[in-house]
Amino acid sequence: MNIKDKSIEELEEVASSIRKRILEVVSKNGGHLSSTLGAVELIIAMHYVFDVNKDPFIFDVSHQAYAHKLLTDRWERFDTLRQFGGISGYTKPSESPYDYYVAGHSSTSISLAVGAAKAIALKGEDRTPVVLIGDGAMSAGMVYEALNELGDRKYPVVIILNDNEMSIAKPIGAISKYLSRKMASPFYQHMKKRTEQLLQHLPESATYIAKRFEESLKLITPGILFEELGLDYIGPIDGHDLKLLIETLTIAKEMQKPVIIHAQTVKGKGYKIAEGYFEHWHGVGPFDLETGESLKRSTKPSATSIFSKKLLELARQDEKIVGVTAAMPSGTGLKPLLEEFPDRFWDVGIAEQHAVTSMGPLAKEGFKPFVAIYSTFLQRGYDQVIHDIALMDLPVAFAIDRAGIVGEDGETHQGAFDISYLRPIPNLHLFAPRDVKTLEYAIEFAQGFQRPCAFRYPRGSFILDCDTFEATPFVLGKGELLIEKESDILLVGYGNGVGRAYETLKLLDFDASLLDLRFVKPLDEELLMHLARRYKKWFVFSDGAKLGGVASAILELFAQKNIEDVAVVSFEFEDKFISHGKVGDVEEALGLTPKQLAQKIKQKTG
Amino acid sequence: MNIKDKSIEELEEVASSIRKRILEVVSKNGGHLSSTLGAVELIIAMHYVFDVNKDPFIFDVSHQAYAHKLLTDRWERFDTLRQFGGISGYTKPSESPYDYYVAGHSSTSISLAVGAAKAIALKGEDRTPVVLIGDGAMSAGMVYEALNELGDRKYPVVIILNDNEMSIAKPIGAISKYLSRKMASPFYQHMKKRTEQLLQHLPESATYIAKRFEESLKLITPGILFEELGLDYIGPIDGHDLKLLIETLTIAKEMQKPVIIHAQTVKGKGYKIAEGYFEHWHGVGPFDLETGESLKRSTKPSATSIFSKKLLELARQDEKIVGVTAAMPSGTGLKPLLEEFPDRFWDVGIAEQHAVTSMGPLAKEGFKPFVAIYSTFLQRGYDQVIHDIALMDLPVAFAIDRAGIVGEDGETHQGAFDISYLRPIPNLHLFAPRDVKTLEYAIEFAQGFQRPCAFRYPRGSFILDCDTFEATPFVLGKGELLIEKESDILLVGYGNGVGRAYETLKLLDFDASLLDLRFVKPLDEELLMHLARRYKKWFVFSDGAKLGGVASAILELFAQKNIEDVAVVSFEFEDKFISHGKVGDVEEALGLTPKQLAQKIKQKTG
Repeated sequence: MNIKDKSIEELEEVASSIRKRILEVVSKNGGHLSSTLGAVELIIAMHYVFDVNKDPFIFDVSHQAYAHKLLTDRWERFDTLRQFGGISGYTKPSESPYDYYVAGHSSTSISLAVGAAKAIALKGEDRTPVVLIGDGAMSAGMVYEALNELGDRKYPVVIILNDNEMSIAKPIGAISKYLSRKMASPFYQHMKKRTEQLLQHLPESATYIAKRFEESLKLITPGILFEELGLDYIGPIDGHDLKLLIETLTIAKEMQKPVIIHAQTVKGKGYKIAEGYFEHWHGVGPFDLETGESLKRSTKPSATSIFSKKLLELARQDEKIVGVTAAMPSGTGLKPLLEEFPDRFWDVGIAEQHAVTSMGPLAKEGFKPFVAIYSTFLQRGYDQVIHDIALMDLPVAFAIDRAGIVGEDGETHQGAFDISYLRPIPNLHLFAPRDVKTLEYAIEFAQGFQRPCAFRYPRGSFILDCDTFEATPFVLGKGELLIEKESDILLVGYGNGVGRAYETLKLLDFDASLLDLRFVKPLDEELLMHLARRYKKWFVFSDGAKLGGVASAILELFAQKNIEDVAVVSFEFEDKFISHGKVGDVEEALGLTPKQLAQKIKQKTG
Repeated sequence: MNIKDKSIEELEEVASSIRKRILEVVSKNGGHLSSTLGAVELIIAMHYVFDVNKDPFIFDVSHQAYAHKLLTDRWERFDTLRQFGGISGYTKPSESPYDYYVAGHSSTSISLAVGAAKAIALKGEDRTPVVLIGDGAMSAGMVYEALNELGDRKYPVVIILNDNEMSIAKPIGAISKYLSRKMASPFYQHMKKRTEQLLQHLPESATYIAKRFEESLKLITPGILFEELGLDYIGPIDGHDLKLLIETLTIAKEMQKPVIIHAQTVKGKGYKIAEGYFEHWHGVGPFDLETGESLKRSTKPSATSIFSKKLLELARQDEKIVGVTAAMPSGTGLKPLLEEFPDRFWDVGIAEQHAVTSMGPLAKEGFKPFVAIYSTFLQRGYDQVIHDIALMDLPVAFAIDRAGIVGEDGETHQGAFDISYLRPIPNLHLFAPRDVKTLEYAIEFAQGFQRPCAFRYPRGSFILDCDTFEATPFVLGKGELLIEKESDILLVGYGNGVGRAYETLKLLDFDASLLDLRFVKPLDEELLMHLARRYKKWFVFSDGAKLGGVASAILELFAQKNIEDVAVVSFEFEDKFISHGKVGDVEEALGLTPKQLAQKIKQKTG
């Protein structure tokens, strides 16, 4: 859509039709809502002032970029948002040439802008990277690493800080408090005037002091932090005032140095029911536009809700239990614990590195920390797991949520790698529950376990109903043979893979046994060696990458024990990034539905 | 050593005997020198004011903590510094109860202090965490994540910022410039006085302005950045003035809130030859105390030096080549490139996340970025490799130095995990040179390769001499059979493992063939399947973790291809953190010397 020749009034109409389209589609498909509604004018102004055909448009996390998608080439296709084969909920260059970069994890934008600015400088081109970043993203260390270089080298980059006083949850940390000092600006304006008047009446000799005063006064704007890092700061300004935004961005672009524009917006803007609300309206399922009520019926309890309830129950009995989330209080289920035990549970903001490392000393001091985190975000704290927890051999428990296919969020959010990247870490113990009841046992096991451990569970509900097999407590390094048949075939499940294996088993027209591996590290060597003598065809079900995954662990054991007559087939994820869509659709595309897997087993054993 | 009842003069004597002992041992054993010499008074003051028996002493990176080791229980044992079975070059709780935490990677200290403070608050104890952190460590994002929470929650933590105007190399980034504004403090003192005088003469009505002035003036100290983050700031002060340090630390401890003390020290203090020098004296091998000259004879060129030379040569011909290091210009060999091409090579400070991500857009814009990084530090940029490079399928090349056993630095620095953690990442291609000549070919291959790739090479020199086998260029996914014999036995080497395999092969009293795998991803399926038909006993040599490693990759392939009659034995690292010491000593302890491995092969095949 060409908006460059439109008047402010016409742009305001564009904003309102964009909002209408977003609400129309998100209420049907689900998606990110409140931040994307809040950023509409910011994005229109970006497109008005900058040239999307040449200037790199960089959206942090990019879940707020729906308006950008609608303004470029996706107005019609937008109703396929987050559906399999449809428009991604994030920016994605393979979807559109107007999407400069992928982003689903937070706080990468300023590093990307620095990289783009370096390339532009080397090519000698006249292009300016423009970044849209939310205040919540400012708590991640990556941002500071990038600002540190940007402020030093002074590349021309325009950064719009979208300050809606919340990341996903409520604002966290000193920086957040800092940004919310809204009074600073009018106060500053007033002070500046008064000071100028005052300075005019000072004796001549005080001129250098006057200059210092002026400079030091400049510092009481909310921009000090950024100015100290070497960036120019403008703001705060009204992030819904298109005229002001266009003027300001035009000035910033012409400055040809790093500038941060602090824009204040209302989350959910334009949809009264969602305006200003925290967290609930961040990411939503389908809902009734009229009432705002969710249309999604949840039939089975989510793994997250069970984790939340059980940990709360244990925390009430055991005051040694503490925990942390990195800006995902609801997502991880830690919210009720943060509320009931504000001294023992912490939301540290988007700061996975700090979240992990800060739990180490608590474990050392005799507490039992739970790090509640998504599989994909634990990647951000990988070195910290190794260097600050495992090397110290401390009893920190990682509760890994969103392990496996996450559905509509897609590539950037899949919990595909945790088994592979955690398995080589010495001292770390890895296990997984198969259903809600064993998830409770997993938490209990972690509570009592005196070394580093991690257990994983899926987004949403387990495949397996909890009354299918009787639940038993976890015992270190012990698996559990759930179904024992006279057969040559063994299905091996890990975590949610047990449910997938069981669903598959039910479709076979011949007998097979079913093992719940429970521990991928340490493996139940005794049981596996025993089973290797009985079963010669093993099929491994686990919601994780094949490379370095569960089947790989079994193969390593068999190689070490000289077991050569057992065929091990992995039904884990192939070596590809996994796209977005409903979990069922995605699984079907991957050939991982029980029906498809049963077919594969028949082929392999027939 | 009890120093609490000593006079300042006596403490100064302690300082000088500590320096003597450090010089005596480090000149013999090698180790970290200049930062540890610079921190002697800081550490003495810490021990004087705080109680090491109860207050957590947290040393960032901890290579500057030798004085702490000498002051606690390691004066005698100190001459085993960095030797196998001896004193570690870093703090290590398993070595002494006075070492609160492990640290070998930078910038974890403030997170650790926050964790310790939380535990102390929960226990209701009267203990104060005290942190010693260098200015170089301030560029890492982790520090800000931690400061963000600390400034918000106001736990009592005393942070000593040891500002010697350098991290390991020269100071990097806006923060570094910021800290070096030394004039700020005297100027501030002067200004404050003048202002107070001035304010006394203002009319009554201006009182509130006066208050604002005072507040805003406070901000022109170098502490603004920290004060804005919610910490109290004291400094800068002379970090060698014991009296001042003790006074200041005493005040800070009593403040019972987060305080940062900015202390300026001279790197190498007390050893004239090293005073103020950059980088060279940071970490040293044995040297002549009298002349400062290195006693180490390097017989073979290091892999790093070859990387450095070859990349420089290519960069002169190909202006698309760019590169980055995270504070390791000498360590990675990027220094000459930074000097010759300051617009194309960047040192971003200790900021691995930003280093990785910022190279993505350069690749997208048609450049060929090389990320020169140690295996152990790439862990810090793990999510960025996945989310910002591999997912975008961009041709960034990771040049992974210090892959395998690193020797004296020990546990925190071993390059053990990179193969395992990189292998599951889609789109990423992994290969390794076996000697200096193939390292040159590896760099050339990376130069021309249009997708993400990573190649690894050891600290120091390759085991294999480059005239042993004729070097051939890398071909995507192709291995190379180096020795072909009539035999049932195949030794498979990857990277430096080829040299280890060859040394082992020479000790066998029977024939065996030797494969250089070259690519662990993608594997040379055709060649491996061919070899699987001929050789039934495979031994895999690779300097990396066994879990998810090279043998595991081969096992995965064999499982997929239904190869059941090949025994694969892995000679990779067992699932344990690997201690410090001379590489030969460490390898012997691990059973990985050619002699030991030849013995194992004989047992397995005999």
